[in-house]
Amino acid sequence: MDRLLKKCCIRSSLVKKCLAECLGVFIIILFGCGSVAQVTTSENKNGQYLSINLGFALGTTFGIYVSRGVSGAHLNPAVTLSLCFLGRHPWFHLPFYVFSQVLGAFLGAATVALQYYDAIMFFGGGKLTVTGPTATAGIFSTYPADYLSLWGGVIDQVIGTAALLVCVLALGDRRNSPAPPGLEPVLVGAVILCIGVSMGSNSGYSLNPARDLGPRLFTYIAGWGGEVFSAGDGWWWVPLVATNIGALVGTLIYELVIEVHHLEPGPSSEPPGLDMNAEGKHVGQSWRANQT
Amino acid sequence: MDRLLKKCCIRSSLVKKCLAECLGVFIIILFGCGSVAQVTTSENKNGQYLSINLGFALGTTFGIYVSRGVSGAHLNPAVTLSLCFLGRHPWFHLPFYVFSQVLGAFLGAATVALQYYDAIMFFGGGKLTVTGPTATAGIFSTYPADYLSLWGGVIDQVIGTAALLVCVLALGDRRNSPAPPGLEPVLVGAVILCIGVSMGSNSGYSLNPARDLGPRLFTYIAGWGGEVFSAGDGWWWVPLVATNIGALVGTLIYELVIEVHHLEPGPSSEPPGLDMNAEGKHVGQSWRANQT
Amino acid sequence: MDRLLKKCCIRSSLVKKCLAECLGVFIIILFGCGSVAQVTTSENKNGQYLSINLGFALGTTFGIYVSRGVSGAHLNPAVTLSLCFLGRHPWFHLPFYVFSQVLGAFLGAATVALQYYDAIMFFGGGKLTVTGPTATAGIFSTYPADYLSLWGGVIDQVIGTAALLVCVLALGDRRNSPAPPGLEPVLVGAVILCIGVSMGSNSGYSLNPARDLGPRLFTYIAGWGGEVFSAGDGWWWVPLVATNIGALVGTLIYELVIEVHHLEPGPSSEPPGLDMNAEGKHVGQSWRANQT
Amino acid sequence: MDRLLKKCCIRSSLVKKCLAECLGVFIIILFGCGSVAQVTTSENKNGQYLSINLGFALGTTFGIYVSRGVSGAHLNPAVTLSLCFLGRHPWFHLPFYVFSQVLGAFLGAATVALQYYDAIMFFGGGKLTVTGPTATAGIFSTYPADYLSLWGGVIDQVIGTAALLVCVLALGDRRNSPAPPGLEPVLVGAVILCIGVSMGSNSGYSLNPARDLGPRLFTYIAGWGGEVFSAGDGWWWVPLVATNIGALVGTLIYELVIEVHHLEPGPSSEPPGLDMNAEGKHVGQSWRANQT
Repeated sequence: MDRLLKKCCIRSSLVKKCLAECLGVFIIILFGCGSVAQVTTSENKNGQYLSINLGFALGTTFGIYVSRGVSGAHLNPAVTLSLCFLGRHPWFHLPFYVFSQVLGAFLGAATVALQYYDAIMFFGGGKLTVTGPTATAGIFSTYPADYLSLWGGVIDQVIGTAALLVCVLALGDRRNSPAPPGLEPVLVGAVILCIGVSMGSNSGYSLNPARDLGPRLFTYIAGWGGEVFSAGDGWWWVPLVATNIGALVGTLIYELVIEVHHLEPGPSSEPPGLDMNAEGKHVGQSWRANQT
Repeated sequence: MDRLLKKCCIRSSLVKKCLAECLGVFIIILFGCGSVAQVTTSENKNGQYLSINLGFALGTTFGIYVSRGVSGAHLNPAVTLSLCFLGRHPWFHLPFYVFSQVLGAFLGAATVALQYYDAIMFFGGGKLTVTGPTATAGIFSTYPADYLSLWGGVIDQVIGTAALLVCVLALGDRRNSPAPPGLEPVLVGAVILCIGVSMGSNSGYSLNPARDLGPRLFTYIAGWGGEVFSAGDGWWWVPLVATNIGALVGTLIYELVIEVHHLEPGPSSEPPGLDMNAEGKHVGQSWRANQT
Repeated sequence: MDRLLKKCCIRSSLVKKCLAECLGVFIIILFGCGSVAQVTTSENKNGQYLSINLGFALGTTFGIYVSRGVSGAHLNPAVTLSLCFLGRHPWFHLPFYVFSQVLGAFLGAATVALQYYDAIMFFGGGKLTVTGPTATAGIFSTYPADYLSLWGGVIDQVIGTAALLVCVLALGDRRNSPAPPGLEPVLVGAVILCIGVSMGSNSGYSLNPARDLGPRLFTYIAGWGGEVFSAGDGWWWVPLVATNIGALVGTLIYELVIEVHHLEPGPSSEPPGLDMNAEGKHVGQSWRANQT
Repeated sequence: MDRLLKKCCIRSSLVKKCLAECLGVFIIILFGCGSVAQVTTSENKNGQYLSINLGFALGTTFGIYVSRGVSGAHLNPAVTLSLCFLGRHPWFHLPFYVFSQVLGAFLGAATVALQYYDAIMFFGGGKLTVTGPTATAGIFSTYPADYLSLWGGVIDQVIGTAALLVCVLALGDRRNSPAPPGLEPVLVGAVILCIGVSMGSNSGYSLNPARDLGPRLFTYIAGWGGEVFSAGDGWWWVPLVATNIGALVGTLIYELVIEVHHLEPGPSSEPPGLDMNAEGKHVGQSWRANQT
């Protein structure tokens, strides 16, 4: 059996990374959207908002454990973009990473829909609706609260994603107070938990263009129809645009307030060959590993 | 006292492993089914669905801590089967492991029934019922939600157990991003928590044939009667069959998407004698320790 | 300031240990009973049963962090008794440890009563009652559920304390799969959390004679009166007796099923001088440190 | 891009520390007060009291991760004062640290108000009120429960802050049972969680003068008006004064009961040059790092 499996070995580094990113985002959506499905279709009987926060947080943790050693576990186009912008990841990888991330999210949403097919049909009375008391589109992608203005939604997603990046960069900064080796995925999951309990109310803390677009495309195709794009005054573009802006803002804040002031030379000045060997074993390392 | 105890020392490695598997599953059921008993009989006053998720998660964590150094802490026939299938555990051990696991679950269920005897009698009005508002059979083994079709249940258990195996294999893969040494049991418990908040709604996330069969046999004998097998359209076989299929599916997914593509030679190519000494100190090692 | 403090240095090892045990149990009660006070007096508005589980779990964690390096952090007369029985702690220390533990619990209860004085008076309408809808004695010590028989309570406490000891002994067993160094207090706290969500319903999971007796004595003196001993058919002796029996049962189970079968010689056969230097840095070590 | 950023490098050690303290407290308030905003404006639909406990706990954890390597992560004027009092931090730094901490809290409150602007306006019907059913001032700073007397509030904050200091000092005491390296921020967050579930009911566990004063100043300026100072019988000074007293009491308790009795010489007797190099990598070290 082991020998049979070894024949499937792929040697292209980029394909391997794309596979890992795809599986990582798949895990996030499987557990994250799964927990929304559980709370929604059981009408809070088998869980509550805190369960959803835990689902996305632990989904992120295990999405990272599954992929970090191979692809560096970006799992988020906004993270990949920030790293490219800072010159710590090759621009050439960007479209492949983003495509894999969106694909993983799409497949994750499809799996949740398959697993909760009976429940969704029962809860929605056989109908797949985007708004109203038995709406189920919110299981898959994010929609704004009724009171939220579009500008309020943009600000919400910029602040949320900026907070994510500040914390994640701090956890990986070896000249500050980094996370203990091997526990980075748990602590990044804790950041997601923390954002979920404090910034989830306005628009469901997407924080991640792929997490939102993939499942939205799935619902569009699978029967929820065009309303998934028109609902909330055409909300769909906000999680795509605002999260990228937020990621850049958060990166700049952490760089300007903390990282540039470190006196000791950091990992980025180490010989690149050393980082290449690390093969993305640490977030900080992997982010620099592809620098030429 | 210490000397008296030392006389009880068993030298057979297989018997020791079976004892450890039995105690490990006993702990899972004691805490897991105990938390269902607490929430059910207190009618959500002394806990909620999240307490049940925590009970099974932490029960798994401590079941692993209790047995990992001795038996490798499979604690689940579907896990043992997957490892045999991959050639990483001897087929010869399989029946002994499975029997010990089911026995541990049976004894765990009996202990929960003993501890909650007064509460179960009070809640059920002196009757032991499988369905209806005061049903107590669900404390011990899993039953499907009313809306769930048999096929829906099979898919639910296949997806759930596959997700479990993907995450557990990633946590033990030393060439990816493994769990820190000594914290594997906590992280496997976190996987169970994560599955509990996201995949518990349909049929109670059995994920484990022994966890379901042992307590079901206990309820059959202890007075709940034949309905424990007939309820839910003869649901009882689904957690036995679908979890094994799911474990194999999950193993294949992780192997094909991640593990076979690692370039560096992994632990499986190390001399077996080295692994033998490890005596199951790490999941990854123990799974390979018995390879000839 | 530092120099002034250093003049207070006590050189007697036993007095230092008793001070540490006292402060450790004080912390458990301060956080544990404090969380019951919060949930009770706010009528579930500022917390729920899970908050109480977290309060006792984290209280235990920090009680251990505060005292482990000095006294080995037994924090429980039933644990001290088990260790004496196994010959791993000197019988001569037993009364001093137990007295310090009960004193710490008494002082902790007094501090909770001081902090929640206004809240308890407001909630109870100025009266301190042991039973009824505005009873507040349950904030401090444990009382059985209405349905629980005395024998059911004894069994409940024996099983709960036995489960505690099995898990704690496993976490400290260096020849099995021990907790990572420095995280033992967190994992023992997790055991308490796990027991709280799965065995708290019947009689409030005392598990610890000092945790129950100290606060009960405080309520007796502070105005709740003799009913604290007569309530629940004279329940008060059950947490004192059954927990000690349970601790011995749990110790025997772990020793007979797991520990005696380890082939390699364990820490107990190491030269005692080496353990003496360790000065209780690890649970396992400290438990053996005082063997002559 | 990297080069552009490096031009912003500040070389003054004190300015860097103040920036880090400011960002750290900003993170605490952003997540902590954000979670109160979420629970308040969603009327417990998107969270509950436990979410608020988690928000402040994880906010503290990430506030520490962001700043610990630079400033030692006091993030609390009462902590800075205690350390100055004990001679472990230079008095000269005190006003700069306190100002940065209050500024960070002010900016954090402003960001929460920006993010939840629509929600606060919707919930309050367009009005910003300090008391009553749609009060929103409690999102930002603490107010006492109706039943609480001023003296009760003082005692509440003294006990709470003392408990915080006892636990934090134990976690950093390398001669006791310290937190594992790199996990101190998580464990300090757990202390905040523990205090939140057990001491949050009376007056919202401020524990930190800056956490309370900064947001209160913001609400005063931003439209809630003078009532933020007059409400609760002029409550505003209690979190400022009582927390400082509590911090000193807690420091004295830990020093007198545990730390002064350690026989081995501790880190404070190590040559200071060694600590200087450490640059605040561990709480214990950083607290001694600035001793002359």
